Amino acid sequence: MTQFLKQFELKAEQMDAYLNGYFIRSDNKFIEKINKAMRYSLTASGKRLRPLLLMEFCRLFGGTEEDAVDFAASIEMIHTYSLIHDDLPAMDNDDLRRGKPTNHIIFGEATAILAGDALLNYAYENMLSKALQDPAKMQRYVHAAKVIAEKSGCRGMILGQVADIMCEGEPIGVETLDYVNLHKTGDLIKAAMMAGAIIGGAGKEALGKVETIGLNIGMAFQIVDDILDIESTAAAMGKPRGSDLRNDKTTYPMLLGSDVSKKIVKERVDHAISILNEFEGDTSFLEALFKYLCYRDK
Amino acid sequence: MTQFLKQFELKAEQMDAYLNGYFIRSDNKFIEKINKAMRYSLTASGKRLRPLLLMEFCRLFGGTEEDAVDFAASIEMIHTYSLIHDDLPAMDNDDLRRGKPTNHIIFGEATAILAGDALLNYAYENMLSKALQDPAKMQRYVHAAKVIAEKSGCRGMILGQVADIMCEGEPIGVETLDYVNLHKTGDLIKAAMMAGAIIGGAGKEALGKVETIGLNIGMAFQIVDDILDIESTAAAMGKPRGSDLRNDKTTYPMLLGSDVSKKIVKERVDHAISILNEFEGDTSFLEALFKYLCYRDK
Repeated sequence: MTQFLKQFELKAEQMDAYLNGYFIRSDNKFIEKINKAMRYSLTASGKRLRPLLLMEFCRLFGGTEEDAVDFAASIEMIHTYSLIHDDLPAMDNDDLRRGKPTNHIIFGEATAILAGDALLNYAYENMLSKALQDPAKMQRYVHAAKVIAEKSGCRGMILGQVADIMCEGEPIGVETLDYVNLHKTGDLIKAAMMAGAIIGGAGKEALGKVETIGLNIGMAFQIVDDILDIESTAAAMGKPRGSDLRNDKTTYPMLLGSDVSKKIVKERVDHAISILNEFEGDTSFLEALFKYLCYRDK
Repeated sequence: MTQFLKQFELKAEQMDAYLNGYFIRSDNKFIEKINKAMRYSLTASGKRLRPLLLMEFCRLFGGTEEDAVDFAASIEMIHTYSLIHDDLPAMDNDDLRRGKPTNHIIFGEATAILAGDALLNYAYENMLSKALQDPAKMQRYVHAAKVIAEKSGCRGMILGQVADIMCEGEPIGVETLDYVNLHKTGDLIKAAMMAGAIIGGAGKEALGKVETIGLNIGMAFQIVDDILDIESTAAAMGKPRGSDLRNDKTTYPMLLGSDVSKKIVKERVDHAISILNEFEGDTSFLEALFKYLCYRDK
């Protein structure tokens, strides 16, 4: 195992431990019910991409793990809520996610809807708590939380989800597909990097660069996902293979073929890394992470 | 029409105008789609109880309308998202709300789920924007937003929704019913009053009193709703009558009868008003509002 993979695994495990800490077991059966449903999806093994990006960008600009961890957990909560709702029968109707039955399969649709709502809300609760605890850095935290809110909402990720639904079964071109991916996947990845950078103390110019990095990695990441949906196996992905085809969704490999799609991925990753290397400080883990995420096989 | 009703109507209309202002029409068909679904439920005629309470408590402690309006709109967005999700087929499965077809009847389930998510998220986006715009009062805004988050989430309103679902068809007593109502309805009403008071500049002791007022009015308001669900007509309520019975939900009038339930309402309203009158400043509109809300016939 390479040095990077060891580090990555360790950091993801540390994040899992943090995430577990947000749900203390309760004797109250109502609290335990919603806790259990939230915990089930949040602690299902994931790549922890968004929280790790947030932590690493915070570190790059001089912040500590302690500064960033509540926001890192919060962005994973937002990502997880979106997955729970995406999987619902009225949405993508998926039974399997991260190798486990989806939330509504285990807890029923009503609880799954509420668990998603609760994770979204709890994310903001944790971000606001952190801001209140640290008056000297309150402005940074509020700014970071606002960027996350913008990129998660009706001009960000949710806009992408809506566009995605509207494009199902429609003949769309690369421009519209870019629009969908930019918002549906790109915005939250962008938000993770930007929020980390803001908490760490990045200035306006640096933040613009981080946004460009986020855009390129977010887009590349989604194209890789689409390629894997066709090429990989259900066992490796932890979710049913070919779900895009089944849901009548247009993807990059469908429009441009796998080879051209892979070329676009490489261009975007190279561009992101070239900007990343303009920053002082140790960017080696981030560079390796970008490559790992975009050249992965599952 | 009494002086109070005129004032109330005027304030609710003013709030409607504010709420409309949060959704600029867009030429982008994806943006317009999610805007339309969010706007549809948010601007359906409602009592605007929570935003008006927030505004009035802010005023009572020395704040201005300008200080409070973004938070007032945000709490109505949170209330509205919870209604959209509550009405879904997997939840209460209601076709009618505020006299209009429910969101999923008009826009389909997938868009209704996303419109709810988007309203919840947009609420936080607006609160965070306001906090950033006013550095001198940032601490107050962050505190107010945190109270709203706590009372909306998995220890507040959503906990109440979960408990409500778990109690369907179960034989429960007054204690459990109180628990459900306290969270499902009481917490957000409490949050509206407390957030307004915090923004206006209320101190810790005053805030404790506001919380007690909120608890009592919130509980009374829910009991009145339950009584009306049995006694009123569908036309007056804007939603199907007897939906609690149909959904196999236990309510106060079922457990204690209408007369005892009305007596409890009166006790809670009297208690709330007695605390309200401990504050200096003009509390006459709030007192009239409490009475109107709890002695209403629709």
